[in-house]
Amino acid sequence: MASGKYFDELSVGDTFETGGITVTESAIVDFALTYDPQPFHVNKVAATESIFGGIIASGFQTIALTFRLFRDTGVLTGTNLGGHGMDEVRWLAPVFPGDTLHARVTVEELTPSRSKPDRGVVRFRYQTYNQNDVEVLSVKMDHVMARKK
Amino acid sequence: MASGKYFDELSVGDTFETGGITVTESAIVDFALTYDPQPFHVNKVAATESIFGGIIASGFQTIALTFRLFRDTGVLTGTNLGGHGMDEVRWLAPVFPGDTLHARVTVEELTPSRSKPDRGVVRFRYQTYNQNDVEVLSVKMDHVMARKK
Repeated sequence: MASGKYFDELSVGDTFETGGITVTESAIVDFALTYDPQPFHVNKVAATESIFGGIIASGFQTIALTFRLFRDTGVLTGTNLGGHGMDEVRWLAPVFPGDTLHARVTVEELTPSRSKPDRGVVRFRYQTYNQNDVEVLSVKMDHVMARKK
Repeated sequence: MASGKYFDELSVGDTFETGGITVTESAIVDFALTYDPQPFHVNKVAATESIFGGIIASGFQTIALTFRLFRDTGVLTGTNLGGHGMDEVRWLAPVFPGDTLHARVTVEELTPSRSKPDRGVVRFRYQTYNQNDVEVLSVKMDHVMARKK
């Protein structure tokens, strides 16, 4: 038995609150050097002239950190079989160094697989907030989740 | 003057081909340890029992690498002001260690900003392929791009 939630144990409207994580300048620059080396992610001096007024986290990093926060709740442990995709990804506000993020994850749809009785697709809405409760990210993500045997 | 393309220099249907990158096992595990530490991303032994039959790259990493490939074409250099969001993100096939990815990026929509005459939103469709020309990822991404002064 996996310790996470099975498809059958989830209901539309179920909501999960994650823990928090502080996004350091070091983490922002390290990620961006590999994946998104634009000046407003890696260069504090140039970033002051960007539309953000300072260095900010890559939006790809914010999504990945949000997923990590949800993963750490244990809901997906052993029951999440993979991901289909994402829709309506919106970067709503910049994430600056020192910001502390947490997320709320809500079950929006449950679709049993027609061809594979051992699994179903769960559409989760992820909403990520900073320490001032400003929503910085909204994403709808489809996870393939195991069904109970 | 920035060296990238300005909003005004792009037309619907313009297509850009990126270079390639080989996704190593080390890169997959390193990324996943921080952002997506599920067994099928970090544990070669457990991954053999996953629906993928072996370790695969986190989908968040595939998106970020795809963006990096496009960034390296120079199209965005100095003219990309930031990102609004993504739609219809689809992980179409797994990315295994040793796979070599490249992407095709197509301009789908051009929307001048109503309130800010110095910028517009460009909707790009990103399509990522492996060395066998299997499409592994499709994403529509909205970039805020500078207009020519």
